[in-house]
Amino acid sequence: MACSIARSLDVIGDWWSPLIIRDVYLGVNRFDDLVNNLTISRNLLTARLKTLIDGGILHKHLYHQHPPRYEYQLTEAGRDFVPILFAVMAWGDKWLSEPEGPPMILRDAETGDAVAPAIYDRQTGKPIELDSITPTPGPGGRATTGTRIIVQRFSQQAGAKAAS
Amino acid sequence: MACSIARSLDVIGDWWSPLIIRDVYLGVNRFDDLVNNLTISRNLLTARLKTLIDGGILHKHLYHQHPPRYEYQLTEAGRDFVPILFAVMAWGDKWLSEPEGPPMILRDAETGDAVAPAIYDRQTGKPIELDSITPTPGPGGRATTGTRIIVQRFSQQAGAKAAS
Repeated sequence: MACSIARSLDVIGDWWSPLIIRDVYLGVNRFDDLVNNLTISRNLLTARLKTLIDGGILHKHLYHQHPPRYEYQLTEAGRDFVPILFAVMAWGDKWLSEPEGPPMILRDAETGDAVAPAIYDRQTGKPIELDSITPTPGPGGRATTGTRIIVQRFSQQAGAKAAS
Repeated sequence: MACSIARSLDVIGDWWSPLIIRDVYLGVNRFDDLVNNLTISRNLLTARLKTLIDGGILHKHLYHQHPPRYEYQLTEAGRDFVPILFAVMAWGDKWLSEPEGPPMILRDAETGDAVAPAIYDRQTGKPIELDSITPTPGPGGRATTGTRIIVQRFSQQAGAKAAS
């Protein structure tokens, strides 16, 4: 599908995969530890790990030679995905909060201050909010998927709204 | 599970749900249009819409009274999730790019300039990157889930690294 969200989700796979990425980030790098911590079946974990390795998010690291033993580590692409999970976490803390408070607090490693992950424009430093954004068709949009057509429709609506 | 990522994914549901949120954001608000655009089965779409409504991400809007006809719209929580999809999109554009270029380009509605969604700290305006963050246990972490233990271990590792 000509959509980078769909492509990304194809690699991420399903519900389990973001939790596997979270655990590997937090230092749960070995198969048995992942099974225990996630209470996921061994077959399902094997399948998800394969998807994440094939998708370039995790790689296997040989940490013991005889017998061969492996750890799972984040690739550069995987590390680049973790801040998105921080944003999902912040969204969950805001909209699905429990009375006891957030399960985890992210802190600036230097200052120790709690951070509040939000989506900003890297170019201008401005927060990205729905009303400040217009999606437009890019060169890789294909008419067959509907995306191009929808985005064009959206742009026209936004244009009409701005003109009114 | 005492993890706001897991809680969020529980509401988001699966692979389809982020694409439904994307489509509703882009103006594909009606059941039949969603079926056609996503090529999802009617049963599966019905189930996913129910999860998204129960989770407070979508609501049903009556747009025609006789006969009653509904559109799906984003709630405030749903609108707040869309920038995370923008970040997923930017990640996909970077790491899973196709030769023809990005399918969609997000532009500043005022200036028309392309925006580059990234995760920043709302407090300090600094980019959030893995090496600059230490996860610490929050009040809502429960030992039974393993999260608290892992986070404590991570904090110790990070502390040891900083001290070395």
